[in-house]
Amino acid sequence: MNEPIFILRGDICYSRNLTELAVIKQGYVICKEGMSLGVYQELPEEYQDLPVRDCGDDLILPGLCDLHVHAPQYTFRGLGMDLELLDWLNEHAFPEEGKYRNLEYARKAYGSFVQNLKESATTRACIFGTIHVPATELLMDMLEASGLHTIVGKVNMDRNCPAYLTEKSADISAEDTVEWIKDCKKRCQITRPILTPRFIPSCSDALMENLKKVQMHYGLPVQSHLSENQSEVAWVQELCPQSEFYGDAYDRFGLFGADCSTVMAHCVYSDERERRRMKENGVYVAHCPESNMNLSSGIAPVRAFLNEGIPVGLGSDVAGGTSEDIFAAMAHAIQASKLRWRLVDDTLKPLTAIEAFYLGTKGGGSFFGKVGSLEEGYEFDALIVDDSAISSRDMEVKERLERLIYLSGGAKIKGKYVAGKEIFWR
Amino acid sequence: MNEPIFILRGDICYSRNLTELAVIKQGYVICKEGMSLGVYQELPEEYQDLPVRDCGDDLILPGLCDLHVHAPQYTFRGLGMDLELLDWLNEHAFPEEGKYRNLEYARKAYGSFVQNLKESATTRACIFGTIHVPATELLMDMLEASGLHTIVGKVNMDRNCPAYLTEKSADISAEDTVEWIKDCKKRCQITRPILTPRFIPSCSDALMENLKKVQMHYGLPVQSHLSENQSEVAWVQELCPQSEFYGDAYDRFGLFGADCSTVMAHCVYSDERERRRMKENGVYVAHCPESNMNLSSGIAPVRAFLNEGIPVGLGSDVAGGTSEDIFAAMAHAIQASKLRWRLVDDTLKPLTAIEAFYLGTKGGGSFFGKVGSLEEGYEFDALIVDDSAISSRDMEVKERLERLIYLSGGAKIKGKYVAGKEIFWR
Repeated sequence: MNEPIFILRGDICYSRNLTELAVIKQGYVICKEGMSLGVYQELPEEYQDLPVRDCGDDLILPGLCDLHVHAPQYTFRGLGMDLELLDWLNEHAFPEEGKYRNLEYARKAYGSFVQNLKESATTRACIFGTIHVPATELLMDMLEASGLHTIVGKVNMDRNCPAYLTEKSADISAEDTVEWIKDCKKRCQITRPILTPRFIPSCSDALMENLKKVQMHYGLPVQSHLSENQSEVAWVQELCPQSEFYGDAYDRFGLFGADCSTVMAHCVYSDERERRRMKENGVYVAHCPESNMNLSSGIAPVRAFLNEGIPVGLGSDVAGGTSEDIFAAMAHAIQASKLRWRLVDDTLKPLTAIEAFYLGTKGGGSFFGKVGSLEEGYEFDALIVDDSAISSRDMEVKERLERLIYLSGGAKIKGKYVAGKEIFWR
Repeated sequence: MNEPIFILRGDICYSRNLTELAVIKQGYVICKEGMSLGVYQELPEEYQDLPVRDCGDDLILPGLCDLHVHAPQYTFRGLGMDLELLDWLNEHAFPEEGKYRNLEYARKAYGSFVQNLKESATTRACIFGTIHVPATELLMDMLEASGLHTIVGKVNMDRNCPAYLTEKSADISAEDTVEWIKDCKKRCQITRPILTPRFIPSCSDALMENLKKVQMHYGLPVQSHLSENQSEVAWVQELCPQSEFYGDAYDRFGLFGADCSTVMAHCVYSDERERRRMKENGVYVAHCPESNMNLSSGIAPVRAFLNEGIPVGLGSDVAGGTSEDIFAAMAHAIQASKLRWRLVDDTLKPLTAIEAFYLGTKGGGSFFGKVGSLEEGYEFDALIVDDSAISSRDMEVKERLERLIYLSGGAKIKGKYVAGKEIFWR
């Protein structure tokens, strides 16, 4: 069903803001040409003659947004978690990513990633590929066909990595990147490129300078990693003694917000100076709580980001995280925030379920534009969720949502729309 | 299929001990009269003529053991998590438990709990009921019919609780308990009673004295809560100024191991003195990592328990925990241990996946007898798991197990046996 205008009826729920949840039981939401015309308890007179798709007692929610996921790591999610970041990269992530030089391997592996992402609750995602242009373009073709709206990066890395995963020079890395960006413009409509210097340790100054030129020329956004792990932070300090803090090492090259839309994953150890710069530059945090547990990184100060007005969304960070499920990321975000409050800093209040839902929808969604809500003027990303296996229909919608966050695996995503396009209905 | 002797073939995996996993690909495990006759790579001559149930490439694992779960709280799992323990008890747990005075309510709610537990990976469980004898007996009848082997407690509480959930006196509480024990012996074979003083704050000295008499007369085991939350620990200190530490408040009444088999949930704040007593008395820890996150309690020092020789198993602690899935409890145990190592005490190494699997099988299983392994002489509790939706069959069995721990919701439990009895096959 891809009508220019259509209406869904069901138990509708979305975030007004960080702390306010809107619930419209047996309400209507109208989609016209990919955008929401708003949510109504009673259908306005002018739409009375249009057909209504009745979702019964199912939940109608905004689609979920994943601000950080590594497509080539999907193959080894939930494996080899007994290491910290830098060892884990060398023993697991890098060897696996090296395989994407082989397009046949990439076709099979990315096929499974894209299929599962399509069937998940995610409607938008910021995705890391590998350094390989052909494999990244293949990934983007598959994502384009899925109907999801995604932002995908060919990764740049020219130092401190195994030879099989190191680009030959800063110039070759930049040239490959330009070639890839031009291809993207030809091949894709809903799958957009994003500059992706892997992280400071794997990018020379010359590469960063090149990437800033590319960024300016093509007006691209940027994604990378920031202050994830203590050893990594210490390494960056060593590599960039002139930088005031980790984020400053990106900012020196103009790749840290301000004139380019930027999302940084993790930010576990972002101190006040770094947070101040993030706030000034409008840098997004992709909070990846499960990954930060699995790789023993720590717990990011999400409440501080929120208090200080830094934009935050959630990331699955597969394969530091084990699953693409952003409902699970919400549960992990709440749980991690409670442990941080108890064990690290009791001045920073834990996240509530409503706040975590906001982060996974409207919070991260704003990185993609007017996304993450069902309110009028938002792009129409919607999930139809049959939660009857985990909740009874006489529970409050807010309670059903809370349980869905913790037990999402027990619910069924019956339908999914992205920007008004039906992705599936089953 | 409840033959006196039968054989399963598949990819078999179980814990030899805390750190050693046994893997027998395409091996055989033989069950005779409810007990394992051992695991074999080649079928011994003497069993060659017996029929073999071929599980293909499915995993054959020991059943999982849940050392701590509240049956009456199952109705509100995944709800109302924005409170700490004592407020959460008053606002959610106690009002819900009060409803089990109504047998019709109990029938519906316990029906759902027992059905889901039966379909889960759990084969053995230590279960809290409520103070109500009829509802607890109803729960036990349902559990008896499920084929699971469980230990169930009618809860005792005679102080510091809402009137609707406070037993009228220490004597009435004890009399009800004796009546219930006698009924159990008549009604149940595989569903056994366990003494269940809720926790020190809700049990008067007189009640504890009575319960010790009952314990000795009937030789029952004991389950309760210990050192879960800082406010609770402080309250116990106030209530029992004569006790050296929380556990000593149980031990003064002879309800803390030694001459009675005892399992204590949580033990987040068990200090060296308490741990020494637990070790001396052989008190089991039911480690409930998700609950300890959800109620902002903290993280138990599991590595210390293991180093010191204190027996440990896992508990789902529904509804402090959100799910009865003990694979998920394993993942939470690993994740929590990593955060504890990072944030609290880096002398206590995180748990590995293999160690967490041990805790959820053989570790907790030993509370029930020779349980939690497929080795010869163990009661035959087995799961047949089709993990093809999450793992490819060319992966190592150890890797498939690790992924199953993190992504159990994506796998299918095809078959389940408890003490040799087939619970289901689907």
